[in-house]
Amino acid sequence: MKKWVYTFDEVSEAEALVGDWDSVRGLLGGKGANLADMTRLGVPVPPGFTITTEACNAYTDAGLSVPEGMWDQVRAALDHVEEKTGKKFGDPSNPLLVSCRSGAKFSMPGMMDTVLDIGLNHEVAASLAEISGDPHFAYDSYRRLIQMFGSVVLDNPDEPYEEILEEFRAKTGVATDAELPTDALKDIVERFLAITPRFPADSNEQLELAVEAVFRSWSGKRATDYRNASNIPHDLGTAVNVQTMVFGNLGEDCLTGVAMSRHGATGENHIEGDYLFNAQGEDVVAGIRATIPVGQMATDMPKAYEELLAISDQLEDHYRDMQDMEFTVENRKLWLLQTRDGKRTAQAAVRIAVELVEEGKISKEEAVMRVTPDQIDFFLHPQFSIESRKEAKAAGNLLAEGLNVSPGAAVGKVAFDADTAVAWAEAGEKVMLVRPETKPDDVHGMLAAEGIVTSRGGRTSHAALVARQFGKPAVVGIAELEIDLEGRSMSVEDRVIAEGEYVSIEGTSGEVFVGELPTVIPDINDKWLSTLLGWADEFRRLRVLANADYPADANRAKEYGAQGIGLCRTEHMFFEADRLPIVQKMILAETAEDRQVQLDILRPMQREDFRGLFEAMSGMPVIIRMIDPPLHEFLPGQDELEDELQDLEDDKSVPHGDEIKEVERKLGRVDDLHEENPMLGFRGVRLGILMPEIPRMQARAIIAAACDAKENGFDPKPEIMIPLSIHVKELERVKAIVVEAAEEIMKERGITVEYQVGTMVETPRAALTAGPLAREAEFFSFGTNDLTQTTFAISRDDAEKSFLIDYVEAGILPVNPFQTLDRLGVGGLIKIAVEGGRKQRPGMEIGICGEHGGDPDSVALCHEFGLDYVSCSPFRVPVARLAAAHAAISDA
Amino acid sequence: MKKWVYTFDEVSEAEALVGDWDSVRGLLGGKGANLADMTRLGVPVPPGFTITTEACNAYTDAGLSVPEGMWDQVRAALDHVEEKTGKKFGDPSNPLLVSCRSGAKFSMPGMMDTVLDIGLNHEVAASLAEISGDPHFAYDSYRRLIQMFGSVVLDNPDEPYEEILEEFRAKTGVATDAELPTDALKDIVERFLAITPRFPADSNEQLELAVEAVFRSWSGKRATDYRNASNIPHDLGTAVNVQTMVFGNLGEDCLTGVAMSRHGATGENHIEGDYLFNAQGEDVVAGIRATIPVGQMATDMPKAYEELLAISDQLEDHYRDMQDMEFTVENRKLWLLQTRDGKRTAQAAVRIAVELVEEGKISKEEAVMRVTPDQIDFFLHPQFSIESRKEAKAAGNLLAEGLNVSPGAAVGKVAFDADTAVAWAEAGEKVMLVRPETKPDDVHGMLAAEGIVTSRGGRTSHAALVARQFGKPAVVGIAELEIDLEGRSMSVEDRVIAEGEYVSIEGTSGEVFVGELPTVIPDINDKWLSTLLGWADEFRRLRVLANADYPADANRAKEYGAQGIGLCRTEHMFFEADRLPIVQKMILAETAEDRQVQLDILRPMQREDFRGLFEAMSGMPVIIRMIDPPLHEFLPGQDELEDELQDLEDDKSVPHGDEIKEVERKLGRVDDLHEENPMLGFRGVRLGILMPEIPRMQARAIIAAACDAKENGFDPKPEIMIPLSIHVKELERVKAIVVEAAEEIMKERGITVEYQVGTMVETPRAALTAGPLAREAEFFSFGTNDLTQTTFAISRDDAEKSFLIDYVEAGILPVNPFQTLDRLGVGGLIKIAVEGGRKQRPGMEIGICGEHGGDPDSVALCHEFGLDYVSCSPFRVPVARLAAAHAAISDA
Repeated sequence: MKKWVYTFDEVSEAEALVGDWDSVRGLLGGKGANLADMTRLGVPVPPGFTITTEACNAYTDAGLSVPEGMWDQVRAALDHVEEKTGKKFGDPSNPLLVSCRSGAKFSMPGMMDTVLDIGLNHEVAASLAEISGDPHFAYDSYRRLIQMFGSVVLDNPDEPYEEILEEFRAKTGVATDAELPTDALKDIVERFLAITPRFPADSNEQLELAVEAVFRSWSGKRATDYRNASNIPHDLGTAVNVQTMVFGNLGEDCLTGVAMSRHGATGENHIEGDYLFNAQGEDVVAGIRATIPVGQMATDMPKAYEELLAISDQLEDHYRDMQDMEFTVENRKLWLLQTRDGKRTAQAAVRIAVELVEEGKISKEEAVMRVTPDQIDFFLHPQFSIESRKEAKAAGNLLAEGLNVSPGAAVGKVAFDADTAVAWAEAGEKVMLVRPETKPDDVHGMLAAEGIVTSRGGRTSHAALVARQFGKPAVVGIAELEIDLEGRSMSVEDRVIAEGEYVSIEGTSGEVFVGELPTVIPDINDKWLSTLLGWADEFRRLRVLANADYPADANRAKEYGAQGIGLCRTEHMFFEADRLPIVQKMILAETAEDRQVQLDILRPMQREDFRGLFEAMSGMPVIIRMIDPPLHEFLPGQDELEDELQDLEDDKSVPHGDEIKEVERKLGRVDDLHEENPMLGFRGVRLGILMPEIPRMQARAIIAAACDAKENGFDPKPEIMIPLSIHVKELERVKAIVVEAAEEIMKERGITVEYQVGTMVETPRAALTAGPLAREAEFFSFGTNDLTQTTFAISRDDAEKSFLIDYVEAGILPVNPFQTLDRLGVGGLIKIAVEGGRKQRPGMEIGICGEHGGDPDSVALCHEFGLDYVSCSPFRVPVARLAAAHAAISDA
Repeated sequence: MKKWVYTFDEVSEAEALVGDWDSVRGLLGGKGANLADMTRLGVPVPPGFTITTEACNAYTDAGLSVPEGMWDQVRAALDHVEEKTGKKFGDPSNPLLVSCRSGAKFSMPGMMDTVLDIGLNHEVAASLAEISGDPHFAYDSYRRLIQMFGSVVLDNPDEPYEEILEEFRAKTGVATDAELPTDALKDIVERFLAITPRFPADSNEQLELAVEAVFRSWSGKRATDYRNASNIPHDLGTAVNVQTMVFGNLGEDCLTGVAMSRHGATGENHIEGDYLFNAQGEDVVAGIRATIPVGQMATDMPKAYEELLAISDQLEDHYRDMQDMEFTVENRKLWLLQTRDGKRTAQAAVRIAVELVEEGKISKEEAVMRVTPDQIDFFLHPQFSIESRKEAKAAGNLLAEGLNVSPGAAVGKVAFDADTAVAWAEAGEKVMLVRPETKPDDVHGMLAAEGIVTSRGGRTSHAALVARQFGKPAVVGIAELEIDLEGRSMSVEDRVIAEGEYVSIEGTSGEVFVGELPTVIPDINDKWLSTLLGWADEFRRLRVLANADYPADANRAKEYGAQGIGLCRTEHMFFEADRLPIVQKMILAETAEDRQVQLDILRPMQREDFRGLFEAMSGMPVIIRMIDPPLHEFLPGQDELEDELQDLEDDKSVPHGDEIKEVERKLGRVDDLHEENPMLGFRGVRLGILMPEIPRMQARAIIAAACDAKENGFDPKPEIMIPLSIHVKELERVKAIVVEAAEEIMKERGITVEYQVGTMVETPRAALTAGPLAREAEFFSFGTNDLTQTTFAISRDDAEKSFLIDYVEAGILPVNPFQTLDRLGVGGLIKIAVEGGRKQRPGMEIGICGEHGGDPDSVALCHEFGLDYVSCSPFRVPVARLAAAHAAISDA
C-alpha cells in the first residue's frame, strides 16, 4: 500500500524514501516539509500530518476520486495526533480542532484553500465554551468554520454570510465582527447553518470534504492562472496539511505574531516582527488593530520571547538563511506554525548574504548565489525610500497592488491613452500611462511614459514585455482597478483618480500609490554590495566590459566595475549637433575628394573623443567599432528637403538658383541611398569598402589619439572593430587600410602603440565562416542584436510594434529574443563561430556586446559558450558581474 | 639537369615523367602537347619542339633570366629537327625556317605573341628566292619577319611599318600588301631594317629573342587581364612551340585551310571548313579573299583531301570529340599544324554528343558531361537563325564583337541612357540600352531594355552581372565601339548608329548586328536534346520540380520534364486584377469576422486554381506554399490613398462623409502595417499565427480542390508548405489548423486524400533548429532567396541597386549569392538543417525552391548536400536536369 500520509514525526522516513530534501518538498509541499522538519528539530509545532502531493495527483487523475487507503491512513495519522495532544477529534468532552491547509512545493500565496477550526459542531462548541471558559471564542470559531466551509468547500457565494454579519453588526451597534457579543454569535451560527444545509456535523466528514476541496483547488482557475504566470508546472499537485489548532485568542495570556529573523527591508541582523495579544493570525496581517513590535515581547512575555529568539537562531542556523516565522502563544505556551526563507528587498538580500558569510554561516559562493542578478538590477534602479512608502501607506495612499513585472520606481500624471501620454511628455510632463491592457498601438505612449499601469494581463502580457524591454517600471494585472476611459478616471473601490492626477508606482513590489513619492537612487558604493560584487569577481571567469561612447560614460563604467570598453559606437559621436551637418555633407558628397574635405574636419573631433576614452580606460581594452548604421539615419529626410525646396521656391525676395540646385542634388542623393530594407543594406563595413576614406579617417583618428594618450602618460589599448562583415576579403581590405594608417602615424609620431583589428560577428554568414574570418580578425565580438535580427528574420526596428510581442504573449517564443539570447538559433551560431574562430586562431579573444550583454540569462549562456567577456551598458555592469559569477559557480 | 625542352617525338617521355595527359598539357601547353601527340599518332606534323611552361615560370621567377641549360637543350632539339627535315637553321644553302608560338595549358587566343619565318636574313632570303623559285614569297616572308620581330620582340610601335607599306602600295598602285611586287618588297625590307636597327641577322639570336618575348608576353597586361577575366591561374606559365615553317603560299600546288570534323553550328557529321590556294593561314581567317569550301578539295587535290579525311577521323577517334584542325598543303604534301576540340554552338554540342554515343565513340555519361548546363540554357533562349546571321554578315551588318556575357538574342532601338530606355519601353518600344559602362543608377533602364551593350567592362562588370542576374542578353567590353553620349550616336570605325536605330545582339556569341534580325525560339522537343536529357535523367539522383502558380505553367513545366511542382506561390493568385481588391479588403479588415467575409469570397477562386494544378500534375507532388510576402505589398499605397482622400474632399458635388471616413480608416491601417524593414516583418507564417482564418481558408481550398481532382479521376498529391517559420510552435499551430480543416472537408466529402504538411527553411533559425521543426514538418524546402538574404544581411529588394554588384565586381564576393548558392554560409546552414531534420525524421523529403534551383553550380551543391529535389522555373527545368546529372556523374 502506497503511503499517502506522513505525520510530522515521519519526515526522516519520507526523506529516506525519496532521497533528498528537494524531493521531500515535492512530496509533502514546502509548508508540510518544513513543519515536519521543525518537529524533527524539536521546535514546538502543533502536531499534525501531511497528505502527499501524490495523493492530490492521484485524486485528479482518477477524476476526483480519493486513492484507495488514503482515508485509512488519515485516520491512523489522526490517532497519532490525538495521542500526542491528548485530545480527541469530534469528542465534545476533550475536543481536538484541526486546520486543513494546502501546501505545494512552491509557494502560491492565496491561490488555494484553507479551512480552520475543523471539528466543531453544536456539542463541541458548547463544550469548548465551557472548557475554555470563553464562550465568545467558541462560537466565534464555530461561525467562522461554517462560513469558511460554506464558501470554500461547498462553493456557496459569500454574500449571504456577509449580509447576515452586517445585519447583526447593525443590530448590536458594533463596528467589527470581532466585537459581536456571544449571543449574537450563537444566533449567527443558526442563521449560517440555515443557509448551509450541507454543513456536516460529523467532524470526520468535515475533514474529508475539506481535504477534497483543497485537492480540487489545485486545478481551480485561480491556481492554474497563477502557475501559468509563474512558470510552475501543473503536474506537481498540492499537499494538504492537517494540523492541531492552537489559539492566540484564548485570553490575555495568548498572542499571535509574525517575525523575521533579520530585517526584511534593510537586512539588519535583529529579529523583527509584530504581534497582537488575544488575536488570531489574520488579525496581525489585516492591520485592523495596531500591532506591537516583537521586541516588546521581551517585557510582555519574556519566557516565550527568549524561546522565540532561540528558535529563530536555531532555524536560521538550520536553514542557513533569514527566516520568516508565524507563531502563537496559547496560554503562555509558544507554538511555531510556519517557517520559511524570508522575503527581502534587494538591499536586504545583499546585506544578509554578506553578513551570513561574516558570521561563518554560509560560504562566499553561497552568498553570491543568494542574490539574483535581477535583485542587483532592482538595487540600482531609482526607488522610493522605505520611509516614504511607510508614510504613504500610513496615510492610506497605497491605492492597489498588482504584478511587479518591471522594476523601479516611477512617478507621473495619469494619462489614459498613448496619444495623450505622448503629447504631455512632449510638453515636458512626467506621465504614467494607464490602460486596461496595452497593444502594439500603444507602444509610442509606453515609450513616452515614465511607467505603465494596467488592470488586466499577466507577467507575459504585452505591457509587461514591452515595459521590461525598455526598462520602464510597470505594474500590471491590478484586478480591483476600474478604468473608466469615457469618464477619464480610474478607481479602486471608492477611491477615484482623475486623468492628470499624479500616481507613483514601485515596479519592484507592484505597489501603486496616490500622489508623488520622492525617489532615491541607491548607491553603487554601498559597502555590502561592494563586498558581494567583489566576491562575485573572484568567482567569475567572464570579464565584464561596458558599452560607452564618451569619456563620461567610460568613467561611470569604471566606477561600476567595468574592465574596459567593449563597444564604442563611433557613429554616436557623429550624431552630435555640431557634427551632424558635416557628416551629412560627407555622405551627400558625390566624389571621394568632396568626402575627404568633410572627413578632414571630423578627424580631429573623433581623435579628441578617442583620447578621452583611452585615458579613462588606461591599461584596459577599448574596442572601437567603425561607423556602422544605415547611412540614411544620418541623412536629412525627404520631406524635410522637399519643404526646404518649397520655401526656397516660394521666397521671391532674392534669387535662390544655386541653393535650389543644391537642395535638388541632395534630394537626388537621398533618393539614391533610399533602401527598402535598410537594416539589410549599405551599412557597416560595406561603407568602408566602397568609401575607404571613411575607415582611413577613423583609423588615423584612433591611432593618433592613442599616441596622444601615451604621450600624456596613459596606457592605451585600442582594438579596432569592423562591423557587419560577411566575408574575409572585407576584413583584408579594411585591415590593410588600418595597418597603413597606423604605421604612417606611428612613424610620424615616433610612438608605438599596440593595437588589434577584429570584427563583429553579427551576420549568420560571419558566424558560419568564422574560421576564414579569423585569418584576418584578431578578435571577435558578437553583435547579438543584429545576429538575432537576421537569425530570426525579425526587424529590430519594428519588433515591438509588430508581431513579436504577440508571439511571446501567445507562448510561441518563450522570451523576447532581443532581450534574452536565443540558445538554439543565435546560440547555435555563436557556438559555431567560437569553434571556428579559435580553431583558426587559438585563444583569440571573443566577447559579446549589445543589449544581451547585461541580461543575466544571456550572460550565463555566454559563460557556457566559452566567451571571454560580455559588454553591456554601464548601469548593467554590476548585474553582469553577478550573473557571470552565478554562471561560473553553477558550472563548477 | 632539368629537361626544359621536348621535341615533338618525346611526348611519351613527357607523359611518363608527369603521369597523365592533363599534366602533359600543363607542361607542354595545349598546342605543344597536341602537336607532339599527333606526331606520335603518325599524323604529318612539321617537326619541332616545345619549351616547357616550367621554363617560362623559371624565367619569370628569376627576373626574366633563362634557366641554365635551356639554350643547350634548344640547340639539341634544333639538331633533331634539322635531322628530320634535312634542312639547316641559318644555312643559306638549305635553310630551315621556324615559327615560335606561345601555347598555354588553356587556350588564350590572341593574348600572347607569335613570330613566324625565323631564320631569314639577307643571305637566306636570297637563297630561298632561288631554291623556291619564288623571290616574291621569299622577300614577302622576310619583310613579315622583320615587322613581326620589331613589334613583338622589340616592342617597336607598329605605325612606322604600316606607313612604309602604305607608301609602297600607293607608289606601286596596289590595294593589298600581298600584291606588292618583289622589287618593292626588297625595298621595304631595307626600309624596315633601317627602322629596326636591333634586328639580328643571326638566326639563333632571332630565335632566342623570340622565345624570350613569348615568355614575357605571359606576364603582359593583355594576357593578365584575360586570365583575370577567365579565372585562369597566373602561375601556369606558357610553353613555347618552335616548329618548322611549312608554306601554303609556295604556288598553285599549295593551299592552307581550317576544318572541323563536324559542323560547328549544326553538329552534322561531315567535315566542314575552308581553304585558299597559294595562301598563308591568316589569309583564310582574314576573309579578304573568298575561301573555298573544304569539300571542293576532293576535286582540287583529291589525294590530300583523302588524307585529310582519314586524319580527321583518326583524330576524332583519338580525342573522342569533334576536332578543329589547321592544315597546309605545301607542294601537294599535307601537314597538320594544329588540332583541338572544336568550338560549337549549343545545338551542335548536343547533337555531336548524342551522335558520338550512337557511333559508339563515347559513353552516355560522357555525352551528358560533354554538354554544359549553360549550353542547355543557351539552347532554350531565343536565338537568331544561322541563316539570318550569315546573311547579316554577308551584308556587312556585323557591327562588332564583344564579350558574350549573358546569353540569348535581343533586338531593340538604341537608347543611350536609362531614363530614355524606360520611357521608350513604357511606350511599348523594344529598347537596347547602350552605355560606356553601367552603374547602379542604370539598373531601371537595364530592366526595361531587351538587351544591354557596353563598350567597357569585362565578364564581372556591373553590366555583365546584372544582365545575367535578370536574364537579359548582353554584350560588353566592345573596345572598338565609340559612344558619343552628347551626339546621341555610336560608331565602329566609320559605321555610325544614331539613337533610336535598331541593333540586334547575340549574347551567346558576343555579336552586335545593325538592324533587326528575326529571332527563333528553339524547340524543347529537338530529338537530340530529348535523347540527351533522357540520358541525363538516367544518371541524376536529384528530382527536378518546377515553380508554377497556374495550371498553364504546370503544363509547360511537365513538357520541360518537371516531376511535380516544388513551389506554388499562392499569393501570386491573389495579385490577379479581379482578386486584389478583395485581398486588400481582407487585409484592411480590423476584425477576424470582417476578414472572414472576404476570405469566403476568395476561397472558391483558390480552390479552382488548386484543382487545375492537381489535375495537371496528377500523380506528382504539388507543394503549395501558404501566403507569404509582406502584407503591404498587397496594400494600396499611402500616396494613392491620400490622393483618393484629396479627390473626395475636393469634390463638393455630393457629400462624401462616409467615403472619407473609410479612406481615413484605410490610411490608418496602412500606417499601422508600415514597417521599416518589411522583409524582416509581418509575413509568412506570422500572418497565419495572428490571422488563423487565412491558413484555414487556404487549407480548406487545397483539400477541397484535391477532393475535386480525385472525383475527376486524377491522383492529387498536395503538400502544404508553411513559410518563414522560426519555431516549431508556429508549425504546431498552423498544422493543427490544416489538419482540422482537412479532416472536416474529407469527412464532408467522403473522400480521402493523402497530404503532407511541411515548412520552408528560409531563416537561419529554422535551419539551426531543424531537428525540433521536423517533429511537426513532414518535409523541408529551402527558400534560399530569403535564406541568402538573412545569412548575408543583404536585402534582396535592394541588392542590385546597392553595394552587392560592386562587391562582386571588386572580387570581394566570388559570385552574386542570389544567383549561385553560397557554399560556406548558406550551404553551411543547409547542411546543418539536412542533418538535423533527417535525424529527427529519417528519410524526410528535403528540397530547394527559388532562383538557385535552376543554377547549375547551385544544383551541384544541392546534390552534394543530399537534397531530394530542386525546384526552379519551368524554363530552367532542362538546365537543372542536366546539372543534376553532371553532379551525379561527377560524384560517382
